[in-house]
Amino acid sequence: MDDASPPKWHLAHTTWFFETFVLGAFDASYRPYHERFEYLFNSYYNGVGRPYPRARRGALSRPTVAEIYDYRKHVDESMRALLNAHDETIQDRVALGLHHEQQHQELLVTDLKYNLGNNPLLPAYREDLAGTPGASAKRFPMSFVEHRGGLAEIGAVEGFCFDNEKPRHPVLLQPFELADRLVTNGEYLEFVFDGGYRNPDLWLSEGWSRISNAAGAAGSDDVNGQLPVEARLAPLYWYRDGDSWHEYRLSGASTLNLDAPVVHVSYYEADAFARWRDCRLPTEQEWEIAATGLPVTGNFMDADVLHPLPIQCSLQRGAQHGETPGRLAQLFGDVWEWTSSPYVAYPGFRTLDGTLGEYNGKFMSNQMVLRGGSCATPPGHVRPSYRNFFYPGDKWQFSGIRLARDL
Amino acid sequence: MDDASPPKWHLAHTTWFFETFVLGAFDASYRPYHERFEYLFNSYYNGVGRPYPRARRGALSRPTVAEIYDYRKHVDESMRALLNAHDETIQDRVALGLHHEQQHQELLVTDLKYNLGNNPLLPAYREDLAGTPGASAKRFPMSFVEHRGGLAEIGAVEGFCFDNEKPRHPVLLQPFELADRLVTNGEYLEFVFDGGYRNPDLWLSEGWSRISNAAGAAGSDDVNGQLPVEARLAPLYWYRDGDSWHEYRLSGASTLNLDAPVVHVSYYEADAFARWRDCRLPTEQEWEIAATGLPVTGNFMDADVLHPLPIQCSLQRGAQHGETPGRLAQLFGDVWEWTSSPYVAYPGFRTLDGTLGEYNGKFMSNQMVLRGGSCATPPGHVRPSYRNFFYPGDKWQFSGIRLARDL
Amino acid sequence: MDDASPPKWHLAHTTWFFETFVLGAFDASYRPYHERFEYLFNSYYNGVGRPYPRARRGALSRPTVAEIYDYRKHVDESMRALLNAHDETIQDRVALGLHHEQQHQELLVTDLKYNLGNNPLLPAYREDLAGTPGASAKRFPMSFVEHRGGLAEIGAVEGFCFDNEKPRHPVLLQPFELADRLVTNGEYLEFVFDGGYRNPDLWLSEGWSRISNAAGAAGSDDVNGQLPVEARLAPLYWYRDGDSWHEYRLSGASTLNLDAPVVHVSYYEADAFARWRDCRLPTEQEWEIAATGLPVTGNFMDADVLHPLPIQCSLQRGAQHGETPGRLAQLFGDVWEWTSSPYVAYPGFRTLDGTLGEYNGKFMSNQMVLRGGSCATPPGHVRPSYRNFFYPGDKWQFSGIRLARDL
Amino acid sequence: MDDASPPKWHLAHTTWFFETFVLGAFDASYRPYHERFEYLFNSYYNGVGRPYPRARRGALSRPTVAEIYDYRKHVDESMRALLNAHDETIQDRVALGLHHEQQHQELLVTDLKYNLGNNPLLPAYREDLAGTPGASAKRFPMSFVEHRGGLAEIGAVEGFCFDNEKPRHPVLLQPFELADRLVTNGEYLEFVFDGGYRNPDLWLSEGWSRISNAAGAAGSDDVNGQLPVEARLAPLYWYRDGDSWHEYRLSGASTLNLDAPVVHVSYYEADAFARWRDCRLPTEQEWEIAATGLPVTGNFMDADVLHPLPIQCSLQRGAQHGETPGRLAQLFGDVWEWTSSPYVAYPGFRTLDGTLGEYNGKFMSNQMVLRGGSCATPPGHVRPSYRNFFYPGDKWQFSGIRLARDL
Repeated sequence: MDDASPPKWHLAHTTWFFETFVLGAFDASYRPYHERFEYLFNSYYNGVGRPYPRARRGALSRPTVAEIYDYRKHVDESMRALLNAHDETIQDRVALGLHHEQQHQELLVTDLKYNLGNNPLLPAYREDLAGTPGASAKRFPMSFVEHRGGLAEIGAVEGFCFDNEKPRHPVLLQPFELADRLVTNGEYLEFVFDGGYRNPDLWLSEGWSRISNAAGAAGSDDVNGQLPVEARLAPLYWYRDGDSWHEYRLSGASTLNLDAPVVHVSYYEADAFARWRDCRLPTEQEWEIAATGLPVTGNFMDADVLHPLPIQCSLQRGAQHGETPGRLAQLFGDVWEWTSSPYVAYPGFRTLDGTLGEYNGKFMSNQMVLRGGSCATPPGHVRPSYRNFFYPGDKWQFSGIRLARDL
Repeated sequence: MDDASPPKWHLAHTTWFFETFVLGAFDASYRPYHERFEYLFNSYYNGVGRPYPRARRGALSRPTVAEIYDYRKHVDESMRALLNAHDETIQDRVALGLHHEQQHQELLVTDLKYNLGNNPLLPAYREDLAGTPGASAKRFPMSFVEHRGGLAEIGAVEGFCFDNEKPRHPVLLQPFELADRLVTNGEYLEFVFDGGYRNPDLWLSEGWSRISNAAGAAGSDDVNGQLPVEARLAPLYWYRDGDSWHEYRLSGASTLNLDAPVVHVSYYEADAFARWRDCRLPTEQEWEIAATGLPVTGNFMDADVLHPLPIQCSLQRGAQHGETPGRLAQLFGDVWEWTSSPYVAYPGFRTLDGTLGEYNGKFMSNQMVLRGGSCATPPGHVRPSYRNFFYPGDKWQFSGIRLARDL
Repeated sequence: MDDASPPKWHLAHTTWFFETFVLGAFDASYRPYHERFEYLFNSYYNGVGRPYPRARRGALSRPTVAEIYDYRKHVDESMRALLNAHDETIQDRVALGLHHEQQHQELLVTDLKYNLGNNPLLPAYREDLAGTPGASAKRFPMSFVEHRGGLAEIGAVEGFCFDNEKPRHPVLLQPFELADRLVTNGEYLEFVFDGGYRNPDLWLSEGWSRISNAAGAAGSDDVNGQLPVEARLAPLYWYRDGDSWHEYRLSGASTLNLDAPVVHVSYYEADAFARWRDCRLPTEQEWEIAATGLPVTGNFMDADVLHPLPIQCSLQRGAQHGETPGRLAQLFGDVWEWTSSPYVAYPGFRTLDGTLGEYNGKFMSNQMVLRGGSCATPPGHVRPSYRNFFYPGDKWQFSGIRLARDL
Repeated sequence: MDDASPPKWHLAHTTWFFETFVLGAFDASYRPYHERFEYLFNSYYNGVGRPYPRARRGALSRPTVAEIYDYRKHVDESMRALLNAHDETIQDRVALGLHHEQQHQELLVTDLKYNLGNNPLLPAYREDLAGTPGASAKRFPMSFVEHRGGLAEIGAVEGFCFDNEKPRHPVLLQPFELADRLVTNGEYLEFVFDGGYRNPDLWLSEGWSRISNAAGAAGSDDVNGQLPVEARLAPLYWYRDGDSWHEYRLSGASTLNLDAPVVHVSYYEADAFARWRDCRLPTEQEWEIAATGLPVTGNFMDADVLHPLPIQCSLQRGAQHGETPGRLAQLFGDVWEWTSSPYVAYPGFRTLDGTLGEYNGKFMSNQMVLRGGSCATPPGHVRPSYRNFFYPGDKWQFSGIRLARDL
């Protein structure tokens, strides 16, 4: 898949980000480590130059992983002097670079899962993850938490944030209610059994077109009982073996945990599921207002299991905490929650100056906002005002469903 | 282009709409005129059955035009008894069928223009249109009309409307101002001359990707000085001959009228132009609130010149009326105005019951709202609450630009 | 399908051929009828200029059929003076133009059949063809006619021929035998029933790849019991209705005539069928040597039924003549017979001078030779040395199968 | 490029070949090393099962290289007992496996060169190859060696051969002459300078279509002065820097050696070059008859530089030997020589029995024969009757040009 990059590319790209936007911007004596790395490791900044085609990143056998670590070490060392400079502009830029790197830490995990989960061997990322417990607690019944709507404010308040979270501004909401927990695998399986993928009334036109094509592709490629991942009329990484359902996780293939949150669904699937339940998805305004004031805690990427590897994720663990029905649970750190809001500018939105203005603003077409953060998100990276965005057909992120209803 | 259908298909499809959703629904004795017409002339109603592929409509040499007129005559006659029935449900359905037909009258004109405007002969649709005057009046300077923002209501009030215009609901707006007229060809040409198509800072990522590809395609297909339409880095139907610019109109090729409204631009172009002018596009809420209360008059498709042909359009005539600077002009009947609003459901939106629920709701992803109506729109078809929608890359509709700014 | 053009294009192109290569070459006073017709109606002569894209020919609503007849009339009249000139060079060129037009007469029929045969209405080309008898005579058992092989000569002898039939040259053949008649629909149906399309051992790799893809496409598009034509694992225009097989002919849909020659098969299908029968296809050398000396008579396009339409074909009539088993029958005028010979140059081959050198020579890659002529071929157009050529996947020509074996 | 596979895949596939066709066929007690390896490492044997898609081989991050070496070791050890069995059938099969592995040794080199040569860094395969001498000797003038033609025999005589080299059979040739050496880079550059890529008269239709598209693509992708490899109107791996021409070799980028044989040209390029020189390419019959009896020596992959890596190639070294003008030189071991012969069956051809019948026979459509062997071919692998075959557009093999003429 063109959207997924190999680990070493993420490693080089985040290094290049510091080299270009910190060293290149603030250290007049700095010389690029390699004249062609800008072409290879620029992701999408046209202001810097045309990037190497994304779809071919996987074919780059050079530089090697070792050479990229050398590059990284060189840039790290060059950064030291600047970090001690006590210059606020530089420190802000470094902070952006660190948050950028956190985003790529998550992408590295999702891309790696995509690569391994599409390998017919379904290899585990690490063997020692096999025992990682899933959500063992029985899921409590879904109930809905009411909100009166009315005038409120959304947008970043203080601390680090991306440009797309600003400016803070008033919004007007109709009364609504949100489900107190995420939709589970078990609930999604009911949708599958009820013919959810065969009923066009439930689907947006573009979603229906995709699953119609997938059904056709499945017909031709269903070999040895294993569907190609794209063609499954199910969440990504689900597959069926006779009457039982399985999913690929970073610990390898395992039986589908019916109580864990459903994950790796597209916006089209989330939207169709909600319609099947006579519900809808929340808007991003509703989500943010409901989440504001609640603690930003959850199943974030577990620092304990990171060592000695730079990054990993055991997922999907679901919420194993003693959460109380009737309060909003699983808002942060399990799955990114699809909202019904297209990703557009807030009133009065201004991009960052210069090339970094390309960071967020230029993607404001055809994508949908997701909120909350997933188990692959580094701890401390998200906040109630955080706006993630992906195309409505994307399934390789840890994306799930929370239901909403009009009151 | 897959989106454009031949005239006879529109004629048959609008007939099929009445046959299926009026005769088929309310006349128990009615038998379909031809058992395969449902397959051929169903546009996109999956509830009825899988439609004939849109991209192949142009290849249907049968039924002939004469056979389709026979079909139409048959359905018209079958409708007479029902029309006299004084049944409100039936009358509402007939009204929907008539508004549906008006939409296809406009599509017929835009599709026909696409076909002729891509023919290397650039043939006029009708020779007697050659003398149709363009906008001869000198364009007055653009000024902006202020709005205070605040709480207001949008959505359909009374009379016929589509489901997507409801329910009427409150919105909260920041202060803003709208340009008092449309952007002209002359103003857009300045954008071209200023390198607008070569500056990635002005473009959404997907727009930039399209024009980059178009530039490449132009390199390979630029034959005899005539670019393929898709590859022009300009509005659709513009072409350059040495130093002078021309455009294809239904009256044939003619010199570009610098004072007429620019038309046949994509959302990406409209958005880039606005950014180049340090402006933005209006939201659909802003547009509707500004337009509410103003007379719905303009350069609609001229009924006088329709006879004896069923449909035609002389366009693009621009606003030749004695409009006064400082008031909002050209809101209706010149061009559809791109808004910055993705096409999504209003709070509390409900689709029509049954298969007709597919009419509007299922297209609520990846499209943008346009407001106002064009010179190809039949008179009486639009209103301030009317929401048209197309993909951001679409250029073959009569789509243009009105600028907005934060106050 | 990109390869098929609308009737009016064939009409204009053959006219353009005379205008360009006769009038343009030999009448210094002649001026082109329309400056853009060269672009529109040039098929593939790069020496003349880049042609209008083949795939878009069907979208040209202008010039109209009437305008093309005017063009044709103008060129016909301009030709008169030249035709009386008694100049051998001119007469040779005119002869080439006439043979070229005969080729397009056949293509017009095959393209028209493709258009109508892919229309879900399966309309007859002409209603009065309905009664045209198929091959009613019971097919005699297939036997093989032996040839000793050895040294022989092939290539054009005298009279008009294309450049690719020359020079006449010696060939050396191993002993072989040819089937005394064509393979029938009934025999091909046995291959289908025996799982011919499911056994990779029978297929060339590229043929297998095509039918594997077709099988997948069928899964997704098989709606209302009607397969898309491309996806049928059967000859083009065959379709199944429950247990009975039908085929589309120019007279409309009809029950498959089991005794008629199988037609509209690809080279891959012909080759797989032959392998299934422990046979092979003949080489073009074998075919020509076997056919030399036999009368060039057969089911050619019937002049009697042409009037008043310019062209038609009742097909597939098969050989209804009192042919004798044990002699080679159906060599000419039923179907083009796939040979196992790739289309390459004869030893010492020279193309025509100038732009007309593009007529045949530049297609000498990736195509296969067919011999004999079909029921859509105008009478008098073929001869034993005639080399037709199409891509191995092409099915829309009247192409069939004659078996061969080593002795 | 879909045709190129990563080194570890070649390593696993050749191991799988022995596992399947030797151990699986002759050792009843053998159990497959891994149940999914058959799916992953089967190349194209449909008789074994549907293979993993070729285009995705590069995405397989598991099994790792180390795991594949374990697999290889296991199979090697399992082979030992069988190798001592003195069973002729087994020994023949092992011989086939070894020749198969030699073919993949060459493909490994060509695929590796393709990967590195498309990397913007143009990395050397091994730094110590940098000093490898190119052809330093001045090229002698090209002259032609005459052959009288007449009756002769071609095909394998004795020793190991593939099925497609049999049966030996008589052929009849017209008098011809062959160039006494290969076409050089310098000569090919003259073709480029003379507008060879801009003159449609020189090209087969499909070749012209390819280079027209390449020219267009170049327009859009020519970034930083570096054309994408596919778009170069030149041999693969050539690129221009201002006025000087360079080529990528396994030792890195270097100035084009004008006296070395031109390599990495397609059949279309070879054919166009020959036409430009008023020559043609030899048929495979002409080539084999001319080569028969000459010593099979040349610049084969140099065993001395293999150590300690399993495989490498310094190329393109050209013929540095003291070859004498007027005798045929460079027949073996420099480049594969495109012939004008499509790859088809010899008269009386029989495939191997069973699944191994897919080895060669099913590719007998749309490919062209190449003769001689290249500098990447393992020594001892080729012979005068050896028939290599690739698609006419393929350029990533070490393919070059020898001219021929009619006498």
